[in-house]
Amino acid sequence: MKKIILLGASGSIGMQTIDVVLGHPEEYEIVAMSIGRNMDALEKIIQLYPKCRNYSVLQQEDAKVMQEIYPELSFTCEDEGLLSLLDIQADVVVNALVGFAGLKPSLKTIEKGMVLALANKESLVTGGPLVKAALKKYNGTMLPIDSEHSAIFQCLQGNKHSEIKRLIVSASGGSFRDKTREELVNVTVKDALNHPNWSMGKRITIDSATMMNKGFEVIEAYYLFDVDFDHIDVIINKESIVHSLVEYVDHSVIAQLGTADMRIPIQYALSYPDRLSLKQSEPLDLVKVGMLHFQAMDFHRFPLLELAYKAGRRGGNSGAILNAADEVAVQLFLEEKISFLQIEECITKAYEQIQFIENPTYEDLLATDLQTRAFVSELGGN
Amino acid sequence: MKKIILLGASGSIGMQTIDVVLGHPEEYEIVAMSIGRNMDALEKIIQLYPKCRNYSVLQQEDAKVMQEIYPELSFTCEDEGLLSLLDIQADVVVNALVGFAGLKPSLKTIEKGMVLALANKESLVTGGPLVKAALKKYNGTMLPIDSEHSAIFQCLQGNKHSEIKRLIVSASGGSFRDKTREELVNVTVKDALNHPNWSMGKRITIDSATMMNKGFEVIEAYYLFDVDFDHIDVIINKESIVHSLVEYVDHSVIAQLGTADMRIPIQYALSYPDRLSLKQSEPLDLVKVGMLHFQAMDFHRFPLLELAYKAGRRGGNSGAILNAADEVAVQLFLEEKISFLQIEECITKAYEQIQFIENPTYEDLLATDLQTRAFVSELGGN
Repeated sequence: MKKIILLGASGSIGMQTIDVVLGHPEEYEIVAMSIGRNMDALEKIIQLYPKCRNYSVLQQEDAKVMQEIYPELSFTCEDEGLLSLLDIQADVVVNALVGFAGLKPSLKTIEKGMVLALANKESLVTGGPLVKAALKKYNGTMLPIDSEHSAIFQCLQGNKHSEIKRLIVSASGGSFRDKTREELVNVTVKDALNHPNWSMGKRITIDSATMMNKGFEVIEAYYLFDVDFDHIDVIINKESIVHSLVEYVDHSVIAQLGTADMRIPIQYALSYPDRLSLKQSEPLDLVKVGMLHFQAMDFHRFPLLELAYKAGRRGGNSGAILNAADEVAVQLFLEEKISFLQIEECITKAYEQIQFIENPTYEDLLATDLQTRAFVSELGGN
Repeated sequence: MKKIILLGASGSIGMQTIDVVLGHPEEYEIVAMSIGRNMDALEKIIQLYPKCRNYSVLQQEDAKVMQEIYPELSFTCEDEGLLSLLDIQADVVVNALVGFAGLKPSLKTIEKGMVLALANKESLVTGGPLVKAALKKYNGTMLPIDSEHSAIFQCLQGNKHSEIKRLIVSASGGSFRDKTREELVNVTVKDALNHPNWSMGKRITIDSATMMNKGFEVIEAYYLFDVDFDHIDVIINKESIVHSLVEYVDHSVIAQLGTADMRIPIQYALSYPDRLSLKQSEPLDLVKVGMLHFQAMDFHRFPLLELAYKAGRRGGNSGAILNAADEVAVQLFLEEKISFLQIEECITKAYEQIQFIENPTYEDLLATDLQTRAFVSELGGN
């Protein structure tokens, strides 16, 4: 029985993690969950998975109210409460938190000797060197949950690191794949939220349209797989069926394919190195898919992807700048305060103007995060 | 340094094996080679790879002539000579012989404790149970060289056998992929030899057009990977880029992709479990390929594939019947003595009428082979 702590339970990854666990009650048990502000979701989760006794929520008043309704359960709150969940004895922590807030829990997970099943890409985008140092120090294990990284991880099994020629990260191309840059000038929030393949949160859907998300995934791949940026490529597979590929030195290419069902990578991170049957899931029908398309990634069309490579190579607090700038810029776009293309402008300006720190501490990253947010908010007229 | 015995050196797989070895002189050495009747090819091979001292040819007079020209080398002949090559100490035997003649050398390779790198699919199609028994008895190792089986083998690395849901063998569809059965009535030998993707020998090109080859590959996969026929499927990928796939119980699908370069699977069989760089080879450019198509296999369209499943399930000498019948029928077709569709008729009749033997010995298989050949020759009016 693997004991799991689930951070970010009410999000898409969180809910699907619960579904995977419910499918294998003999294998997995969730011992603690964190949730943000959505108390309706928390109540539903408690009904769905009454076995879990320990919860953390964002706000103190929510914790208080929930504690009264469910006196037999334990509720903590705020960052401290969330981190205290990690003092509970477990085997795996699924970090499905959103944003920079995921970094500290990732670091504590590793310190505590638990396996880090990572869906919070910001842990690596903003704090890659810190996470790597912790993994080294505590001899820790980090497993990917992102579909692309799970794909690469699966394609790497049974092969040696020295035999990798390059990692090829798949991209759907996002909502605006078929639009030219000129056509992007007047796109609306509604257009941008209409992702062709995946049903995801708002920010990640916008990040897919700007290709910032793919840029973050390239940085994530760099830290997950120790492959330098010159050997990480991006290819567009508009069907999102080929989740990523690995090319080896002998020109053999191994690919992982699947439906757009995030439970596959979630479960693989939990079951690794084994595989378990996936309940209530349709297998991939390649005949029905019929065709898979591959297109080159156009860095001119998607300058944020190029910027991510640049930031990844520069290292230090560069990822933290990009992430914070992107988070605020996307919010400004969703609030219709800036246009779609101004997201790029905001992030590029932040990258150029926020002070570079080569070897940042956690506190440096936190300061970079706050500073960048303020900088981009100002750009947006807030 | 791995020492290699190469059986069938002058064929397409044989020549490409020499190329792979030449690319890695520090890793591989060919210590013995067998060749059939093509003495021009043998002379070229001696120029190309003078390091090898031991040869076997089919005919005694050829051995005599060659021995006079190259007194410093050793030439044996006939079946006995070929088998005597396997008394030489080596690590791997690449069996690239054609037809039923490959079975005995496969068995001796296993008995001698050498790794069997198998390109001779007839070893398994005709003598699968004998090969399996030998592998068990001598704790032997068999590695696939066929591109489809190498693909499956690569996709299986790092995964457990119990986690396989199904093997999906790729088929190009052959020369007549886009023709209806009605359109097959009057196709010519020239049409049939025009394979869209692979440049191969005549028989295998015809076998691709009838899908008999794919049927043999399904039987081969059954013996190579211990997966029953209900869990081996065939899919058409007309580009021959996706060489085969494995679907796992969690609905994750792992695929191996590559150009139509047989040196990739040959080298993998030699370098396994490692990979080496492949010299003078273009990497796969998926962007250039652009599209991959997948189509269901139509058993009505290709009745020989269905017959192969039937024969595989029946076991015994069924594969030996199919193989011998196919070899003769294809020859009759190439000699324009029967039509393309009559290939199917000949093989089906042989399957129905040659006596089934449930647990054949090698001698039974040999008798089946001869009996079936005579039977089909007679059908063809020979």
